[in-house]
Formats: sequence, C-alpha cells, structure tokens
Amino acid sequence: MSVLIVGSTALDSIFTPKGKRPRLLGGSASHASVAASFFSPVHLVGVVGDDFPQAYLNLYRRHGINLEGLQIEPGKTFHWAGEYEVNMNNRRTLKTELGVFEKFSPELPESMRNVRFVLLANIAPSLQHRVLDQMRKPRFVIADTMDLWLNIAKDDLLRLLRRIDALVLNDSEARLLTGDDNVISAVEKIHRLGPRHVIVKKGEHGSFLSSHRGFFLAPAFPLKKLVDPTGAGDSFVGGLIGYLASRPGPIEANLRGAIIYGTAVASFCCEGFGLERTTAINRKAIDQRVKLLERLVRF
Amino acid sequence: MSVLIVGSTALDSIFTPKGKRPRLLGGSASHASVAASFFSPVHLVGVVGDDFPQAYLNLYRRHGINLEGLQIEPGKTFHWAGEYEVNMNNRRTLKTELGVFEKFSPELPESMRNVRFVLLANIAPSLQHRVLDQMRKPRFVIADTMDLWLNIAKDDLLRLLRRIDALVLNDSEARLLTGDDNVISAVEKIHRLGPRHVIVKKGEHGSFLSSHRGFFLAPAFPLKKLVDPTGAGDSFVGGLIGYLASRPGPIEANLRGAIIYGTAVASFCCEGFGLERTTAINRKAIDQRVKLLERLVRF
Repeated sequence: MSVLIVGSTALDSIFTPKGKRPRLLGGSASHASVAASFFSPVHLVGVVGDDFPQAYLNLYRRHGINLEGLQIEPGKTFHWAGEYEVNMNNRRTLKTELGVFEKFSPELPESMRNVRFVLLANIAPSLQHRVLDQMRKPRFVIADTMDLWLNIAKDDLLRLLRRIDALVLNDSEARLLTGDDNVISAVEKIHRLGPRHVIVKKGEHGSFLSSHRGFFLAPAFPLKKLVDPTGAGDSFVGGLIGYLASRPGPIEANLRGAIIYGTAVASFCCEGFGLERTTAINRKAIDQRVKLLERLVRF
Repeated sequence: MSVLIVGSTALDSIFTPKGKRPRLLGGSASHASVAASFFSPVHLVGVVGDDFPQAYLNLYRRHGINLEGLQIEPGKTFHWAGEYEVNMNNRRTLKTELGVFEKFSPELPESMRNVRFVLLANIAPSLQHRVLDQMRKPRFVIADTMDLWLNIAKDDLLRLLRRIDALVLNDSEARLLTGDDNVISAVEKIHRLGPRHVIVKKGEHGSFLSSHRGFFLAPAFPLKKLVDPTGAGDSFVGGLIGYLASRPGPIEANLRGAIIYGTAVASFCCEGFGLERTTAINRKAIDQRVKLLERLVRF
C-alpha cells in the first residue's frame, strides 16, 4: 500500500562538532519520505519556494516519491539553521526563515485522498488537521509533533489526538504534554487523550510503544560515530509507516517490526549530514541492520 | 556455586519525594548480597559497628547469607543520608559518617578464599585489591565502582581493571573514565584497560554489555512508580553474579541471561525504600518479571 506524508520540506544549514553543511535537503517530510520509500510508494505533500534546487527534486524522484502534492510557490524555501553541542544531545536554532512555508496550506490532489496510511510528520497541528479533513477513509494515521506545538498550539494538538491512531513524541514532550514526570504513567495519560498507540522516542536510548497489547521496548542501534542527528526522528517514523504499509495482516501484528525498521533507518540517518547517508543505502542494508538488532537484544 | 561479595554495609537515611526512612539497612554489599541470595549461596565480607541492629543481622541470615566475613567492630556503623530530586535521577548526599568503615580492611576467612565467583561491590579500589590478594583461583571477578573513586583513586582503579573479568559502571562514569563522550567508543577504550566484559548501566534506559561477542542491549523494566532507587545498581550486579554462579556451562553463554535477572531484581529494589521490597519477593516473582521482560522486547 502507499503512504501519504505531509510535513515540512526545508533547506537545513547544520553545524555539528564533526563539521558544517549549508542548505542541505531537510524538513520532517523529506526525511520521512525518503525513509518510507525503502518499503512503500510515497506521496509527499509540502511546499517549497522557487529557489528549491532541482537536484533535490531529482533526489525525491530517485526514491520514487510522488511529488504531485508538492507545491512550488514564488518565494523562498523554508530555511533552518542549527548548531549541535559536543554530545549532540542538545542543539540550538540559529535561524528560522519560514519563507513560503508561512502561508502553506496543504492541498491534496484527488488521487491522494484515498490513501490508507497517513503520516502527519512534524508541522503545525492546524495543518495536520487540514490534511485529515481531506482524507476519505484512512486505515492508520500516525502523527509526530514537537515541543513548540505543545507550547503554542496545545488546543489544536489535543483535538488532533482524538483523530489519530498513533502519536510519536519524545520522552521530554510526553512529560510536557501531561505534566507527569514518570514517562510510563505519562503515556497512560496520553492514551486517555485519544491515540491507542503511543510511541516514545528516547534518542540513543531507543524507543517504546504502548498499546492495549502492553509495552514494547525497542533498542537504539549502537553508533560509535554520530555525525548529525537531524532528521533521525523523522526517519524513524517514516521507516515505521513505510514498513507498516508494506505488510499484510493486522497493524497490531506488524507494529513492533515497524518500530525496529524505523530504528534501523534512523541509525543510518545519524551517520551522515542531512540525507547524505540515508540516500546512499538500500533495503538490503536496512534488513542487515534489523538482523543485527535482533541479535543485539536476544537472550 | 557460591558467591563472595565484598562492599559496604551501612545504615541509609533516605529522603525521596515519596517519603523518608531513617537508618535502613543499606550499602553496596547488603543490596548485592540479598539480590544474589535468590540464586546462589552468598558469603558477605564487610564491617559494621556495635550499634548495628540485630534485626538486620537476622535479615541477612534469613537470606542464607554467610556472615563469617562480616566484622563487628566497636564504634558506629557507616551511615549515609541522601535526598532525591523529584525525578529521582539526581540525588545529593546530606551526610556521610564513615564510623568503623574508616579503618576497614577486608579479611577473608580461610573457607572463603576458594570461592570461584567474586563480586567486588562498590568500595575503595584499594579494598577491592585487598580482597583479590587473598583469593586463590577465582573463575569470574566482577567489580562495580563509582565516580568518587574515578576522581580520588584513579590509579588504584586502573590497576584493578587489569585484575578483573568484568567491570560494571554507569554511562557517565564510562565517559569520566575515558574522556570519551560517546559511550560506545568509551567502552572500547575500557576494554583496552583490562576487562573483557564491560557492562554499562543506564538507569531507566536499561544497560548494555560489551564483550568479544559484541554488544547485548538490555532493557530496564518499565516502572510506573519509583519509590527509591537506592541500591538498584548493587541489586543489578548482585542478581547478575548470583545467577551466573548458579548456571552450568560457560560464562559467555549465561551472561545475557544474568543481566536480565539482575535487571529484574533491580526493578523490585526501586519499588520500595531500601531493601523493603527486595526482601519481600521470591525467586518465582523474579522469574515472572524475566518472562515479562522477554515479552517486552520480542518482535
């Protein structure tokens, strides 16, 4: 089955202790779409300016990503610049230039409204709503978010939680959303807000899934060299939904595997700047890393 | 097989957001010995003062712990008081009264010098050396440590690393010991300092083992209510060595299981103050939690 992915499409200027790169292809939807493309056909919904490099459009196309829903508007592409601290766990934003993203309103081509698997990658909850308003009968909707929306658009986000099947967020966001310092009981509170699946990302410490079947604890892939974690969370959820859409059988039976596949793609993402490494791998490399992960947790 | 455990035997006064308890039975050797006792006979080596409550000696004995190596000296038992912050990840020491511990020098009864499994629980590296000097032919020696010894007794600790089979430490200590910010490459450096097995504790994020067989990533048991994490690390390594000593076959084949058993015992430890909860469980409860852990990571 194919996947619809809506989110930001941006140019990222990244500074890390390992080096710097200006104006890489970035944004939540870019990372998620490339990650999902290893498993399923992807329809991308987003907006870029008329300065958007042709090379990046070609990159999407090489991954078979359908760009019918990518608006190209007069003006500048969303540009983000950020700098990571030595341990790469913290980063600060140096610059945010919204450009054409400021007036973005996702418009789904008719052909995309029947897609069954939907990823609302990290953008404003009001835009995530706008996508769902246009979908006919999605089978599985997963949404990502970030602390910014918890702070400035909490009501929109709370309304969204009642419309989705799964929420992905990191542990500090789970605490922020619920005011509960224990992430395990925080997740119980998130279930009561709507989503029947809650996936908590913990960076180098892996992730976990909570659902009516209980918990699933997923490791992170141990990386000796972290080059740039930008987009790792987007790659994780992109790989997850892409794998899920590729599998027969009930969602519940495939979700654990999907999290492990997302974990594997995210680990590659961290090994290069922007999408450098992710675009250099193939399905076989991902499968090998999943096998390694299996061996790493077996006892 | 039986296990020799040397470490601190103390009275702990503990303040947490969930309450306070004065003068509980504590110390690295107390927690580790009770944890190990669920799997193997334990010989405890330590020192207490003549103020040490009879009830605590009885507690050790109820767990079948051999106290021949527990010195009872005139003076006061080591007393530690500490306070946890709201999230329980950070604590500060309110009081440290060494008492009879100040002049402690472990003396092993003749019968204990042939024990094959040795846990050097957290005490000064010079005392850990003194124990090894008296052992005849240990099969497996595992040492725990803490940031204090990295700061004030690093040379002793580095010499110790060449005498042990396995080192247990937490992730911040691994960084401190090696000066390497990436815990995965830090562990490689620790191998070069001596121990062929390195086990890194990450609290609520689980633990991992590095050895010539590669990595093993172990989860933590997800706890909704954390009451008091004091002694969790000691319970982890105590359960680990106790289980290991109880198993036939090569160490390498049992180490992953041992880490999971240690994880299970440590999770109970966190559910009560001091040893309250750990002393209220049995082997069956531990086995059940290990089964749960298996289900939590399976995909």
